[in-house]
Formats: sequence, structure tokens, C-alpha cells
Amino acid sequence: MRLFTDDSTVDGVRRRGFLLEDVPGILWSAPGGAPGAPLILSGHGGGLHKEAPGLVARAHRLVLDLGYSVAAIDAPGHGDRPRPARDQRWVDDMLGARERGEPLDPVIAEYNASLAERAVPEWRATLDALQEIDDIGAGPVGYTGMTLASAIGIPLAAADPRIRAASFGGIGAHRFVLDAAREVTIPLEFLFPLDDPEITRAAQLELFDAFASAEKTLLGFPGSHFRVPAERLDTRLFPRTFG
Amino acid sequence: MRLFTDDSTVDGVRRRGFLLEDVPGILWSAPGGAPGAPLILSGHGGGLHKEAPGLVARAHRLVLDLGYSVAAIDAPGHGDRPRPARDQRWVDDMLGARERGEPLDPVIAEYNASLAERAVPEWRATLDALQEIDDIGAGPVGYTGMTLASAIGIPLAAADPRIRAASFGGIGAHRFVLDAAREVTIPLEFLFPLDDPEITRAAQLELFDAFASAEKTLLGFPGSHFRVPAERLDTRLFPRTFG
Repeated sequence: MRLFTDDSTVDGVRRRGFLLEDVPGILWSAPGGAPGAPLILSGHGGGLHKEAPGLVARAHRLVLDLGYSVAAIDAPGHGDRPRPARDQRWVDDMLGARERGEPLDPVIAEYNASLAERAVPEWRATLDALQEIDDIGAGPVGYTGMTLASAIGIPLAAADPRIRAASFGGIGAHRFVLDAAREVTIPLEFLFPLDDPEITRAAQLELFDAFASAEKTLLGFPGSHFRVPAERLDTRLFPRTFG
Repeated sequence: MRLFTDDSTVDGVRRRGFLLEDVPGILWSAPGGAPGAPLILSGHGGGLHKEAPGLVARAHRLVLDLGYSVAAIDAPGHGDRPRPARDQRWVDDMLGARERGEPLDPVIAEYNASLAERAVPEWRATLDALQEIDDIGAGPVGYTGMTLASAIGIPLAAADPRIRAASFGGIGAHRFVLDAAREVTIPLEFLFPLDDPEITRAAQLELFDAFASAEKTLLGFPGSHFRVPAERLDTRLFPRTFG
């Protein structure tokens, strides 16, 4: 099976584009190969895509500092993927509500639940394919990403036992996420914007409380999820967990 | 002036006891000396003392891993210091309230305010004296400690500009602490036990919100302040801040 669409090395990091069915993705790894090294699945926020600057920067750090591999895929209707008409209506409803200062939560809950239902199998198939690659292999797997990436990642972590540690955050207690969180038992951290205009503290704390993980850490910071002080919140979850 | 009462090296860490007026303390440092290295002031919790096991372990890590120096003193009426009758009545009231399942907050607020009023000048005099020592010097200063140590450390950080970063936590929004927090502008982290029988989430969040620091991080964990997963909460605040 032909998986990769292109292959280059940028700033000391190997970057391979791939296409699995109709899901495009990027794999970043050490140029020399690192079979069995931890693989971090990197989700993007709503409206963003697999190569948003934050994701690329984080991927480079994970490869260069820790020797990990990192993969990102476009969520349904994001990045290089066409947006279905139903998704576009949800997006329009969301932007309209934001403009009118109305609560976004009802729309987000419905839209994200639909996206997660589609994206979880896509991530699992991506993981299947990547673990078959000789220079990647079946090492420990982590997941990282806030907001939409958590709406997808929490059900993914509940469904796929290969994921052994995760960094979530910036998401409230939507029913489908709460239900999934109760099934999640892996070590995790949860990024907690304290003054977010669109996500209340109470909703985020309710979700954090729901995780069944014995080892979970809440990382609160002033401001919104639009500006996360990632350097300050680096608890080295993945190296601590993966040894 | 004779400051030190004894001098030994244990597990690769130099340990010097000192006595300043009637305040006993311990100074841990690299055996070879590290003039100008960061000095961390390490406060102890209520009922504990300057060489409680947690403080000693943390001091050893700071010396061995980072080359820092660390100082601890007994709070008034704690450790090797006699407890005044008035303090003993507060302690009795507190233990009585705990036994009867009554709120401890009113007693703790009054008792801690009194302890802080006495301890802040003691810490400042200790810092004066330690910075005069040739092998310590006047490098950057940090403060670390939860509960009573925060009741003392927050007013100390508000009063003494030499303190440039601090780790607090496990303390509610007592008036004197709130007032001091509004004067604190240094980088800080705040340890946040999420299920503490004696400190509500709301009171801790109110205090965290009050700090004037632009760079502040909330580190939440399940359970009470009696069992802090310190390794998991290590954000490397001091090395990040002190360079």
C-alpha cells in the first residue's frame, strides 16, 4: 500500500505527508529513524488543521528534544478536506452565536459529537497504518490536543488501549465527552483556561472530575484557550510516563 | 557574628544548622560552595518543622540537581521553638474543631495571620544573614511551601522584593492572605488539592485569582493537601525563572 505522498527533511526533522483513504496527514520523525520510539498523535483545534503553526512547533520539539515521532491528521471538514454541507451549517450557527454573544455550547456539543464519531475511526486506522512502518513501529502512543482535539481525543483514548498518556483541555462537560472520560484511566493532564469567554470553569472542572484516571493533573492558567502558555505547563507527561 | 551551630555533609549535600536570635534554621548547599546560585526559602506546613522529611528531600534535590542553596527555619511555636500559650490555645481550638467536624477556617485564619506577622520579619532577617555568607551570596531568591508556609510566604513575597518566584498552595482566601496576594507580581505556581476536606475549591480559586502576577499557573490534583504528587507537578518554575 502506498501511504506517503511526499518526504522531506526540514530543520533536522523528517516530514512525510500521507493519505489514508481520504484522510491526509503528516508524520514527523527523526531523520535516522526511531523504531519503537513513542508516537504522539497531535490533534488540532476547531477551524485549524494538521499543520497549524502550534502543531508544527510542538512536533519539532518532540522529535528534536525527545526523539519521538509525531502524527497529525486533518479532522473531518478541516484543512485539506472538503466540508460537508451539514458541517458548514454547524460552523455558521457557531460563528453566528459568537457574533451575537450567545452561548456556543449547544452547537459545539452537537457538532463536536458528530466530528468525534467520524474522527475516532480515522485516528485508529491512521495508528494501524503508522505502526506498520518499519522506522516507526509499535512503541507507546500518546495523544495531545485541546478543544476540538480533546472532543475527538477523549473518546479515542476511551476506545483505543494503545493510547497510554494524554494531554487534553479547553473543553466543557458535553454529554458524549463526559461519558468517554469516565472510561479513560491513563495518566493525563488537562489544560484549564481560567477566563475563557466560551468555556466556564465549572464545566471544565466537571469534565476533569469525570476522568477515571488515578494520575491526572489540572494545569490552570489565566486567560482563554486562544493563548496557552505551553512552555510553562510542560510537566513532561510523556517522558515521565513512557520512561 | 556566629551564625552556624554545626556543619556536616550528608549524601553529597552540605548541611549547616544556624541560629539567628532565637530562630533556628538549616542551610543546605553544594559542598564546593555556589556563591550567587539561586537560594530557595523552604517553608513548612502547620504542625511540621524545618527538617520535615518532605522539606529535606526537596532541599537535596534542589542542591544535587540544580546546584541551588536551600534554607528552612522553624515557624514560631514549631519545631525546636517553644509554643506560646496563646498559640497553643489556637492549636487546641483547631484540633477540637477538626475532631468535631466543624470548619477550621475561622481558627486557621486568625492563628495563621498571627504566625505570618511574626514569621515574615524572621524570614527577612534570615535572608539578610544568609546573603552575607561568602559561599551563598546575593543570587536570585525563590520561596516554596503550602498551607502555613503559604500563609507566611505570600505576605513575605509581597514585602520583600528579593523574592523573585514562588510556589504556594493549599490555602484559602483568608483576608490577610488575599490582601498580600494582590501585591504579589512575581512568577508563581499554586498547588491546588481538588478534594481537600478542609479547603474548598472556591476559596483556593479566589486566592489564586487575587495574585497580581502576570505569570501564574494553577496545578490541580485529586485528593487533599496531605498527599501532594510533587514529582508530577514539577514545572521547573525556578530554573525557568532564574535561567
